[in-house]
Amino acid sequence: MNSRKDKVVLDTSLFVNPEVRHDFGKTPTEALYGFLEIADQIPSLDFYMPSSIFQELLNFVDEKRIPGRFLAVLNQKSPSKHELTCPAYLLYELVEDMRDRINKGLRIAEKAVRNVGKGDDEREVIQGMRKNYRDALREGILDSKEDVDLILLAKELDALLVTVDYGAIKWAEKLGVRWLLPSKFKEYLLSFTVQDSQEEV
Amino acid sequence: MNSRKDKVVLDTSLFVNPEVRHDFGKTPTEALYGFLEIADQIPSLDFYMPSSIFQELLNFVDEKRIPGRFLAVLNQKSPSKHELTCPAYLLYELVEDMRDRINKGLRIAEKAVRNVGKGDDEREVIQGMRKNYRDALREGILDSKEDVDLILLAKELDALLVTVDYGAIKWAEKLGVRWLLPSKFKEYLLSFTVQDSQEEV
Repeated sequence: MNSRKDKVVLDTSLFVNPEVRHDFGKTPTEALYGFLEIADQIPSLDFYMPSSIFQELLNFVDEKRIPGRFLAVLNQKSPSKHELTCPAYLLYELVEDMRDRINKGLRIAEKAVRNVGKGDDEREVIQGMRKNYRDALREGILDSKEDVDLILLAKELDALLVTVDYGAIKWAEKLGVRWLLPSKFKEYLLSFTVQDSQEEV
Repeated sequence: MNSRKDKVVLDTSLFVNPEVRHDFGKTPTEALYGFLEIADQIPSLDFYMPSSIFQELLNFVDEKRIPGRFLAVLNQKSPSKHELTCPAYLLYELVEDMRDRINKGLRIAEKAVRNVGKGDDEREVIQGMRKNYRDALREGILDSKEDVDLILLAKELDALLVTVDYGAIKWAEKLGVRWLLPSKFKEYLLSFTVQDSQEEV
């Protein structure tokens, strides 16, 4: 039996995203308690969350309602960003990816200007443009320092990354980081509670 | 006397940018001959250009008119991008820089839509928007693989980087790469021809 301690890095989506958190609870706070109940029974897994991601979580969960035990089970840690290195070819990928998106953003803006020129409602056009622009420029890309924190922390700890962020997943793959979709996370955790209790016997 | 061989990485701007190349010649081809004449007298400097940058140069200079000696003096070499590493915190800087610019681009697009809504000429608005958008999203940023080639090659060779690209200069500073503005490059070169001829004496 494999008794090695493994590490897991969690994104907020697990507790916040309604499609994802329902396995653990109806509200973000309930999801947090639901996760804690299971995680507390798994001594063979260590859980981590980058501090920046934990800050995001506090926008959805009342700080006063977070149990102390949660902070003992879920370690807050930023990646050692000044010591870690990454292969230089990733700079090329990031720059080229951004370049494609910048061009796409300009085409979306041009289309919006033409639609208003044709007489479409200005407010509606701007709203639609904002959505299309953000989708085109952000989806599937490493677009925030929180995303970088997630993948670098998982890399540093040789941990499993649990996130729905497609940009983070794409970069996890570039860096050789293991990842798991949150939809399977509860099942994954429960498989350890069984294993761990068998070990105790 | 310092007789150490030093290395210099060149951008195309030296031969192409009219404000910069005039020190060496009136046309890109003349600038190339002008540079060769001086560089050929400096055994203590090795000159390099990333292959991708050399390809850009061929858009301005007729391949048939490039003397073989030029290719002997100016080494073409891409950086070893799969072996080089960079500090991981640079990923944060690139991602944050891009994020700011993406937001700026959206504001430029919104302004253009409103101007057409007010009755401004659609063609003119689109032209102005394209310029503002490109300026906001590209200037001063590492925005092409050619730029990444320049800074990584200079880093790999511990070379002096000669470029007017502000994005490349900013990143050269992040990576501890020496750089020189092309406006001083001819003087810099000539200081070596004097030194080298003294050494021969």
